[in-house]
Amino acid sequence: MSRRDFHHHAVVHALEADGWTITHDPFPLRYGGQDLYVDLGAELAIAAEKDGRRIAVEVKSFVGPSDVSEFETALGQSVLYADVLSEVEPDRELYVAVPERTFQGIFRSPLGQLILKRHALKLIVFSEEEARIVQWVP
Amino acid sequence: MSRRDFHHHAVVHALEADGWTITHDPFPLRYGGQDLYVDLGAELAIAAEKDGRRIAVEVKSFVGPSDVSEFETALGQSVLYADVLSEVEPDRELYVAVPERTFQGIFRSPLGQLILKRHALKLIVFSEEEARIVQWVP
Repeated sequence: MSRRDFHHHAVVHALEADGWTITHDPFPLRYGGQDLYVDLGAELAIAAEKDGRRIAVEVKSFVGPSDVSEFETALGQSVLYADVLSEVEPDRELYVAVPERTFQGIFRSPLGQLILKRHALKLIVFSEEEARIVQWVP
Repeated sequence: MSRRDFHHHAVVHALEADGWTITHDPFPLRYGGQDLYVDLGAELAIAAEKDGRRIAVEVKSFVGPSDVSEFETALGQSVLYADVLSEVEPDRELYVAVPERTFQGIFRSPLGQLILKRHALKLIVFSEEEARIVQWVP
């Protein structure tokens, strides 16, 4: 299993362990004739809400040679997917799932903090080894 | 010469033909200990202004197999570079240089228009064959 597939499965397990149901793998997003695919769609049943809470999750592995390039790609994808989601399904929130060591690295750096602050990115920080969610940001 | 290098040179020639002086190739951008490199830095002498007008230009070739992936990368880089520039050198504007056929394609699509509108991206549309600037957007 590739490192990327391993992370994909880890995030699926982590979300399920957290009470979420994976509803799409991948989650298709169509806009103006263009097909985009976010890695996962998930739903959390909430007793008080008829429809529950819905998210789309893009899993980033940060296994390439450069964390900065992968950060640029993650930023581009999350900005694009969040913009399209807000047009086609505004109730579904976009999250980027990142391994804990990446969160402690580039996302904690001044560059990462600048971007998180300016673009209100939402992150799911996951443990690769334990396949569990460590933190939702914010 | 690779297609990417060919486009790099085409944009250099196009800017020079338009009266710009290439001051950096690449243009280094340092933030919080992280080194980023935008493809070009350029300056236009304006008689009425002591310091002229300064830009940083990221050249995107769109030669990969997927225009959408390259669009995501271009979006991520331009958001990141523009954010950092606004912190470290707010007078220098970021432009993304794209070939004319790409501008007429994905940038003119509903997806491209959504993103251009929301993120106020600035584009230099260039002709690959003639190595000249076709349009500044906006």
